[in-house]
Amino acid sequence: MSTAPANAAAPHEIRIVLCHTSHPGNIGGAARAMKTMGLERLHLVNPKHFPSAEADAMAAHAADVLASASVHSHLDQALAGTVFVAACTARSRGLSHAVLTPRETAARLAHEASRGPVALIFGPEKYGLTVEEVSRCSVIAMIPANPQYSSLNLAAAVQLLAYEIRLALEATETYPQEAFEPAPYEDVERLFEHLEQTLYDIEFLDPRNPKRLMQRLRRLFQRARLEREEVNILRGILAAAQKRQRSG
Amino acid sequence: MSTAPANAAAPHEIRIVLCHTSHPGNIGGAARAMKTMGLERLHLVNPKHFPSAEADAMAAHAADVLASASVHSHLDQALAGTVFVAACTARSRGLSHAVLTPRETAARLAHEASRGPVALIFGPEKYGLTVEEVSRCSVIAMIPANPQYSSLNLAAAVQLLAYEIRLALEATETYPQEAFEPAPYEDVERLFEHLEQTLYDIEFLDPRNPKRLMQRLRRLFQRARLEREEVNILRGILAAAQKRQRSG
Repeated sequence: MSTAPANAAAPHEIRIVLCHTSHPGNIGGAARAMKTMGLERLHLVNPKHFPSAEADAMAAHAADVLASASVHSHLDQALAGTVFVAACTARSRGLSHAVLTPRETAARLAHEASRGPVALIFGPEKYGLTVEEVSRCSVIAMIPANPQYSSLNLAAAVQLLAYEIRLALEATETYPQEAFEPAPYEDVERLFEHLEQTLYDIEFLDPRNPKRLMQRLRRLFQRARLEREEVNILRGILAAAQKRQRSG
Repeated sequence: MSTAPANAAAPHEIRIVLCHTSHPGNIGGAARAMKTMGLERLHLVNPKHFPSAEADAMAAHAADVLASASVHSHLDQALAGTVFVAACTARSRGLSHAVLTPRETAARLAHEASRGPVALIFGPEKYGLTVEEVSRCSVIAMIPANPQYSSLNLAAAVQLLAYEIRLALEATETYPQEAFEPAPYEDVERLFEHLEQTLYDIEFLDPRNPKRLMQRLRRLFQRARLEREEVNILRGILAAAQKRQRSG
């Protein structure tokens, strides 16, 4: 048993992930917002236009953040290696994740970042994140807003969260962390695949509506923040169930 | 002696004042930022382009905030009637006003807004507010930022402060306020004119460098938050000094 190091979280462990962004100006604005608050790791999932002169213009003196941005075709790639993921959404969701304020989200990200890479993801301008994308996250960040008009500009939302993250990093305490080795994102996703296949194998999943159930299960395990060893144990159980079914 | 009413501050008492804005898109972005946080009173001092299609586009569903914006040729007009003014700046200033965090500024604005209109002013994109403009304010709001790149986009800065104001208004306590009748802005400005004239009359002001001294005096009185009755008293003293000088 070893305790995790008590180092304060570093900004470079915090990824900002923009999914399916329509307007390149917002990518540039987000890069500027990040840099003003000391964040540098920008990940873009399937951006409509990138690179783009408009993004460069809006980035102002944050061209380096744009130049070093990682571009992916799927959210999974942007989240690879992360140990904690929060999703920023404007609406509350049918599947009740824990919903945190920006301040609470920032405190959580700063805390978890002492264990490894963490991510905060934002959806496209008009529609926000899909339920499936949100199901890859442990918590939802919701910005308190005017109920009559709650739709912040994307770069403005990034500015606001990045500001709270900066304050939270400054306030991060250096108490020793509890012993906890979180499972990396890929391992958890492989567990969900294994789980879904097993549920088919054992004819538990309703083939007419498999998604709903999987999302509920995802929510349960995401909320639990699985450890590496726990994933191994669960997959062992699934493998055993599959074997029993095949031989049954 | 009467105590001020204990009503919570209302968002409509809070003005956002943008001075000499260069890019109309930022005016639209600021309007959107305000409306998402429930603020509606936008004042524009000498904007470079307004009204503008670009402002409308960036305002999205906050067109009503733009449509009802007041346009002025001088900052004094935008501040008329206010009882408290804060200036958002990126640099600290030679004249040491109290410098508050966004959170402290928002708490102060929410508190003072229970007494009458208050304002939060922002300078132009490239240069920020002048020393003379800042000298019209009681406190400075400074956004904590990356020392290597501290220049937020204007609309993003408005978003951040508007967010803190929303949180502060929600948290405003309803304890009875201390008895205090602040002097309106115009009265304080007339006092400063009277003071400057008097200092000339009594040959105290150095005609080669009058501004520096007046700014120091402004700072003193702005920090003191003058009451209406105190202004009357001070002006009475000035008038007496002038009369004595003329007849001396």
